[in-house]
Amino acid sequence: MSLIVMKFGGSSVGDAERMKRVAKRVADRKKEGHRCVVVVSAMGDTTDDLIDLSKQLYDGAPPVREMDMLLSTGEQVSIALLSIAIQGLGEKAVSYTGWQAGMLTEEVHGKARITEIKPDRVVQALDDDNIVIVAGFQGMTADGQITTLGRGGSDTTAVALAAAINADLCEIYTDVDGVYSTDPRVVKVARKLAEISYDEMLELANLGAAVLHPRAVEYAKHNNVALVVRSSFTHNEGTYVKEEAVMEQGMVVRGIAYDKNVARISLLGVPEKTGQLAVVFGALAKAQIDVDIIVQSGVVNGMADTSFTVSLNDVEKAKQVLESIRPEVGFREVTSEGNLVKVSIVGAGMVSNPGVAATMFEAISALGISINMVSTSEIKMSCVIDNSRLNEVIQALHSAYGLDTQEQAFVGGPSERR
Amino acid sequence: MSLIVMKFGGSSVGDAERMKRVAKRVADRKKEGHRCVVVVSAMGDTTDDLIDLSKQLYDGAPPVREMDMLLSTGEQVSIALLSIAIQGLGEKAVSYTGWQAGMLTEEVHGKARITEIKPDRVVQALDDDNIVIVAGFQGMTADGQITTLGRGGSDTTAVALAAAINADLCEIYTDVDGVYSTDPRVVKVARKLAEISYDEMLELANLGAAVLHPRAVEYAKHNNVALVVRSSFTHNEGTYVKEEAVMEQGMVVRGIAYDKNVARISLLGVPEKTGQLAVVFGALAKAQIDVDIIVQSGVVNGMADTSFTVSLNDVEKAKQVLESIRPEVGFREVTSEGNLVKVSIVGAGMVSNPGVAATMFEAISALGISINMVSTSEIKMSCVIDNSRLNEVIQALHSAYGLDTQEQAFVGGPSERR
Repeated sequence: MSLIVMKFGGSSVGDAERMKRVAKRVADRKKEGHRCVVVVSAMGDTTDDLIDLSKQLYDGAPPVREMDMLLSTGEQVSIALLSIAIQGLGEKAVSYTGWQAGMLTEEVHGKARITEIKPDRVVQALDDDNIVIVAGFQGMTADGQITTLGRGGSDTTAVALAAAINADLCEIYTDVDGVYSTDPRVVKVARKLAEISYDEMLELANLGAAVLHPRAVEYAKHNNVALVVRSSFTHNEGTYVKEEAVMEQGMVVRGIAYDKNVARISLLGVPEKTGQLAVVFGALAKAQIDVDIIVQSGVVNGMADTSFTVSLNDVEKAKQVLESIRPEVGFREVTSEGNLVKVSIVGAGMVSNPGVAATMFEAISALGISINMVSTSEIKMSCVIDNSRLNEVIQALHSAYGLDTQEQAFVGGPSERR
Repeated sequence: MSLIVMKFGGSSVGDAERMKRVAKRVADRKKEGHRCVVVVSAMGDTTDDLIDLSKQLYDGAPPVREMDMLLSTGEQVSIALLSIAIQGLGEKAVSYTGWQAGMLTEEVHGKARITEIKPDRVVQALDDDNIVIVAGFQGMTADGQITTLGRGGSDTTAVALAAAINADLCEIYTDVDGVYSTDPRVVKVARKLAEISYDEMLELANLGAAVLHPRAVEYAKHNNVALVVRSSFTHNEGTYVKEEAVMEQGMVVRGIAYDKNVARISLLGVPEKTGQLAVVFGALAKAQIDVDIIVQSGVVNGMADTSFTVSLNDVEKAKQVLESIRPEVGFREVTSEGNLVKVSIVGAGMVSNPGVAATMFEAISALGISINMVSTSEIKMSCVIDNSRLNEVIQALHSAYGLDTQEQAFVGGPSERR
């Protein structure tokens, strides 16, 4: 008998029929002899509908405290209905809001972090043989204000709760049946991974693999929570996320990710002077602009060029910031470029395999595509390229690293929202 | 500067436009210099929609604890949106759920009674110059379970909160602009009452005048909360509900009410024996059947007939109960009759005015209508008659007691739901 936390996203409980299917799934798990805690998100479009309503009442961004009050009702509806559906199948069940389940957070609205969990009610209800259903995405501050955890919040609720009650496994049910070697919509022969390490998952999640939120992966790694990502629509085995993930014989790359939300900004003709880069990136950080890859050219005639990537929607803001420090830094010109994509390979063993980088360069240049920027880390290597031939590049890399399978990948259901 | 509790029902906040109108109304009250607490119900059809969803997931009546969890979200959505709308008008506002506002209740789901109010957060927020918005209809048990107060719950929340924070006035905004001398849909010249006493209001409320819930009136009387019932759609003066209400010169009757949910059950040929009635009405009470008017005929040949009224939907259950005690009581026959209506006149001064009853009998018999049952109390007199000519009877009584005005009554908006 194991203690399991099961997390279902909004599309898994989007209507009464889906809610019933989830109820059945949970009840079956209970009948197998497990003790079950279920974390659930708001149904389908509930959150968007509430946001629309709020926008009719307020010009601009509505007050965050009240948005938390408003949006947290979405999960509360889900937990009540799921508990009703499970009891409709004859199982004992009880639902708890975030505050009832003891999810304490910082005093920040809209994107609070969990500070402490007091799972007394949850544990007591489990001891009383209940299936316990907890609202994802929400918590309470020490002085009793309702907060929400921000994007990916329900994943984090599930993982944090699993850690707090010492669950044996945290199951993340989603609309795909696991983590793939790359996007199965791009590469039909993408490989469903049996295992992946926390670090690899974190890289993939940060690179836009929407299946698990990076914050939840971090939390799982930090607390060593055994995770599995699996489909809420099929009974296929999912992908286990753990500290030491076994790599198949002869492979060094676990998966290939891409991120289209990339723009390059270049500062041309920057006079070489100590501390110039600190001024540039300090000013960008102060304006809350995340910078990803940075490349510095060699110095010619006392001048250097610096390029870096930011999110597409930060380009204009970044250019304004740079113009504001032009007098201090004294560069010649700022340029920017969209229509880019960052393609990354991820694998825990990459650092000890010197041929990995060469394979990537070869596969891309064999297509006659030039590489704009490169960045490497211990478990990841990224190239920024023109976005027009992205699919070809991914397919070529997938083959080059021996990831192709014979089977066609399964992709089910609409995409999850939280 | 007064401290005012304002209560708005579900139809007053049924959509974004109405929500804005309520926000404006509250903000105006604040600008007049008052400190304002607002109690609000769930928007329009929200509750019914949630109930429909729950029915798709459960055969029969869904578990009450989870229904409270589910339905309490309706008011939480309303308070958040109203707070957003008020802040959109530039006023400070903060919303609280029932549990946050300290509304403690019994451990009963679906119809809990308030046991205690700890309004610390509400008082603190008022001191910080906020308009405070509180979810009606809901509370929390001592051990942190969410409860709802049942029908009329938001009225009760408003009155109880007004008592707890020593408010100067509790304003109940509704879809009519006050309490009328009788149903303005029946009598066009119904009189809007300037004042009415708690006891009179209680009688009218119990007789089906839906404008205020009896439980809220009782609570107001018990705690001497000054109440006013007024329209959320107009700025007309409403009706004040208070301990001592001034009666206009020359009048003894305040209003005329009717109740169509009436059936008569008769026990014929009951052998006269001490304690027989206690057996009959004890058995009915045990089966949770409310009995209203009871009439006992004189004894003839050691036999008596007993008639009483119950709600229409209790008739079959009552007859079953009576059959089950037939061996013990030994009556000859049970009959029942629908198609009845109970017409009542209400007025605090009736008991000291001996002509009041005669006027009622005369007005009804002048129409050639016979009276089936009569019941009197200090401030009320009721007659049960055939329901086919109800409107004529009410109009005749309204004139006979001098209640007709020259103006036509205003009745606005759709009817409130809670």
